[in-house]
Amino acid sequence: MSSGIRILGIDPGSQITGYGIIEGYGSRCRHIDNGVIRPKTTATYSARLHHIYHQLLEVIATYQPNEVAIESLFYAKNPKSTLQLGQARGVAILAVTEAGLPLHEYSTRLVKQSVVGHGNATKAQVQYMTAKLLQLPAVAAEDAADALAVALLHAQQHRFCDH
Amino acid sequence: MSSGIRILGIDPGSQITGYGIIEGYGSRCRHIDNGVIRPKTTATYSARLHHIYHQLLEVIATYQPNEVAIESLFYAKNPKSTLQLGQARGVAILAVTEAGLPLHEYSTRLVKQSVVGHGNATKAQVQYMTAKLLQLPAVAAEDAADALAVALLHAQQHRFCDH
Repeated sequence: MSSGIRILGIDPGSQITGYGIIEGYGSRCRHIDNGVIRPKTTATYSARLHHIYHQLLEVIATYQPNEVAIESLFYAKNPKSTLQLGQARGVAILAVTEAGLPLHEYSTRLVKQSVVGHGNATKAQVQYMTAKLLQLPAVAAEDAADALAVALLHAQQHRFCDH
Repeated sequence: MSSGIRILGIDPGSQITGYGIIEGYGSRCRHIDNGVIRPKTTATYSARLHHIYHQLLEVIATYQPNEVAIESLFYAKNPKSTLQLGQARGVAILAVTEAGLPLHEYSTRLVKQSVVGHGNATKAQVQYMTAKLLQLPAVAAEDAADALAVALLHAQQHRFCDH
């Protein structure tokens, strides 16, 4: 059916993990799907990590990406959030590794610069520009937009598409 | 062979993850084994997380613990270390959850207080007292001693043994 390179972008978080799948065909990047993994807020955090891990494995099984892109080390506003972000990021990375996929990392600043034009872009700007670049009416969730944005940057860096 | 409750203590870390297995028989806690999981320092951190996860699954398969104890949220000295600790902790917790084992958490302060007698104990003191309580000549690695210490606290709290 398709001969493009399929890229999965992931934006991990202990409350919401965004994902976005695009396909590069040389001239354009096509949107395949995007969404969020949102464990129940009432669940224990071990159950939440379990949920994130298995949902990501399911996303990978469903969309069969060739490569994966993720934002590099990011520090939350306080140590507790940073540790929880680390835990979510750890199981997300493990899912990618278990699936045997190559993982590429990009700084948040570079992602914003690439998609919006400057490194201090707001989440809303990323959301708006991601939808525009992929010719979508909108991207519903901020975290899914961030995931699409890192996938787009990876596609651009490896010349799977221009945008 | 044995009718005691077997407890696995884990001290996760991105460089060294300690583990310790004890068995409680009412009056005494018996030492079963302890050790460390040390991914190659040259490995990428996704390979390290993969290594920690699979080694822990192997420890669980080998020793068949009934319950698992881990130190609760701990913040490293800087955000980068905290994030890396979180990633290691995330895959350790995932291994426990995947094995279907109950996970119990205790604060570092409570672990030290229980094993050494005060909450500001040094790592060397934990190492010394853990060996003494389990009637071992010594516990070779600090991280393995920390893992045994949290397992001992769990055993004591649930009256699997007195010490």
